[in-house]
Amino acid sequence: MPQLFFVPGPSATYFTLEDHLKSALKEQVMAISHRSQAFKDLYQNTQKNLRSLLEIPAEYEIVFTTSATEVWDRMAENLVDETSLHFVHGSFSDKCAKAFQRLGKKAEIITAEAGKCAKFEGANIRQTPELIHFTLNETATGVKHPYADMQKAREQFPEALMALDVVSATPTTPIDFQQFDSVYFSVQKCFGLPSGLGVWIVSPKAIQKAEQLTADGKVYPSYHPLLELVEKSKVYQTIETPNTLNIYLLGKIAEDMLRKGVTQIRREALYKKTLLQKLFTDHPQLSPLVTEADLQSDTVAVANVEGGSAPLIEYLKSKQMVIGAGYGKAKASQIRIANFPTHSKEQIEYLVDLIMEWRI
Amino acid sequence: MPQLFFVPGPSATYFTLEDHLKSALKEQVMAISHRSQAFKDLYQNTQKNLRSLLEIPAEYEIVFTTSATEVWDRMAENLVDETSLHFVHGSFSDKCAKAFQRLGKKAEIITAEAGKCAKFEGANIRQTPELIHFTLNETATGVKHPYADMQKAREQFPEALMALDVVSATPTTPIDFQQFDSVYFSVQKCFGLPSGLGVWIVSPKAIQKAEQLTADGKVYPSYHPLLELVEKSKVYQTIETPNTLNIYLLGKIAEDMLRKGVTQIRREALYKKTLLQKLFTDHPQLSPLVTEADLQSDTVAVANVEGGSAPLIEYLKSKQMVIGAGYGKAKASQIRIANFPTHSKEQIEYLVDLIMEWRI
Repeated sequence: MPQLFFVPGPSATYFTLEDHLKSALKEQVMAISHRSQAFKDLYQNTQKNLRSLLEIPAEYEIVFTTSATEVWDRMAENLVDETSLHFVHGSFSDKCAKAFQRLGKKAEIITAEAGKCAKFEGANIRQTPELIHFTLNETATGVKHPYADMQKAREQFPEALMALDVVSATPTTPIDFQQFDSVYFSVQKCFGLPSGLGVWIVSPKAIQKAEQLTADGKVYPSYHPLLELVEKSKVYQTIETPNTLNIYLLGKIAEDMLRKGVTQIRREALYKKTLLQKLFTDHPQLSPLVTEADLQSDTVAVANVEGGSAPLIEYLKSKQMVIGAGYGKAKASQIRIANFPTHSKEQIEYLVDLIMEWRI
Repeated sequence: MPQLFFVPGPSATYFTLEDHLKSALKEQVMAISHRSQAFKDLYQNTQKNLRSLLEIPAEYEIVFTTSATEVWDRMAENLVDETSLHFVHGSFSDKCAKAFQRLGKKAEIITAEAGKCAKFEGANIRQTPELIHFTLNETATGVKHPYADMQKAREQFPEALMALDVVSATPTTPIDFQQFDSVYFSVQKCFGLPSGLGVWIVSPKAIQKAEQLTADGKVYPSYHPLLELVEKSKVYQTIETPNTLNIYLLGKIAEDMLRKGVTQIRREALYKKTLLQKLFTDHPQLSPLVTEADLQSDTVAVANVEGGSAPLIEYLKSKQMVIGAGYGKAKASQIRIANFPTHSKEQIEYLVDLIMEWRI
């Protein structure tokens, strides 16, 4: 019997995915050469739809990587000589900061306790960062970083590149690309695609920095240097044979989302988010991890469960509903519920009703 | 109208692929968490089937990368301190050698003219290599490197790691894993899968070398270090969210191939290879690029076309048959035809008949 997946990624696939897989077979997307015109057309179509859906400025470049995890390394390798600044309010923002440190960068880290946002305002910054990294939506804790706080960092360090992890946020939470230089996500979250593709969007300022570091011989010469990714992307090509199927599917699902309208997607997300947060407040054994309303993620709802999360997760599994456990150390004590575009209002309503009825 | 793809990768998908995609949807493979037991079971199944199909020794580890191109970087980063030796008889073996050089290794290169094999025997080797890289089947030229020659290198440099590119060869061309330490391929060639997954098989000796280099602080700290790939793989896990769909599909198609029998696959390949090479000899405007029988690839047939390859390629396209042009500089003068397990005897016979009838 099919299950409904509310784990925050990989999660339920987008409801049109099956149709697009059928089209991919019919159009022989998996058999075409990645050097063919058919591939270039497909690539161009995906770029066009993404650009339109996310309102990416024309002068920004869109490149594909193999995952968002890869982007952490590529940012550290291509956009930073020495210093970066990271705001950590969960495991994923932490892993990103650690990637920069692993690759020899002086990555300064501002941390927050669980459920709070590591903010620029009030932080004691010790070094001038070349790049400032924010996590718009921390998938581990469901914390949203408010844009107003990021703006303050930009004002204080106008030279720095602004990097933004939107892995589980986009396209639900809007992005003003003009405020950022390096924005990235993976496709198995809100886009409801099979995993195995990262999308990295870079500003002219980021490319300029990569050019300068390259000229100075300071970019690690991996097989995926940013400048070569960009150069290939401009002619709708990739360095190696890519995940063509996913590039195709992303273009199709971006088109579906354009048709539905991103405003409608956002309106529904807000409704579902309200239901989930209300559940966490109303249920006697649940409490929201993130208590400040402006810090609550639009797409990932996290709650503490009195007595531990396992019984609730098991109970829902018996109803064919799969939600996430807490991340890392919080595995046994928390639940995480994805509120992605493919999760319908009716599904979330049903899930909320089921949980409301549940007691240990 | 559907086309038949004989380009040497990406190429025609394996004939059972559509069924497995349907199963993947039914089993919700694209929605499960990569940290779930369902994922571990799927991963273990793929490893088991691959190990059985390719007769990979129990003490060798199988890890997944995002492409074979990635493996070039990972080998240079994890298995070599200073020196490597490369036998180049086409663009792909060349790109591999260049990757080692790009990453700062002293990569010695032995080259051959087009259609010949760069052999160890008779080569003047200037340095003692830590790793010797061979390309079993050069996809650009259709040259097969004879095992007997590789064996001589192993005898002369018993300390060196033996690396083998089997990208477009496996499972058609057999591999004696005991003779090699690092063997890799991508799945969009003989396995007929969507692109976006690399498979890297390493010996205990290779792991030992990586351990030593890691202890000495000589391994570049990427997000995909060999030792961590191995550590995760041992518990059927991956470092980041992987291409789960492809790992699943690879397991299924390996199972299909096991059922058919690898002996049968090899017998059919030999028959098809003979037809193609005979065509190249018999047709007045074609001539085989590789003239020595023991150097002719089992899976990729390459021919020079008198007057240029474009008219023949166009003629076949009008019959819904898509073959490859020559690679790189040979694009306009050569054709390349894949003879992969999914290409049936009947399809190759029909293709050969069509080409036999063709004149400029």
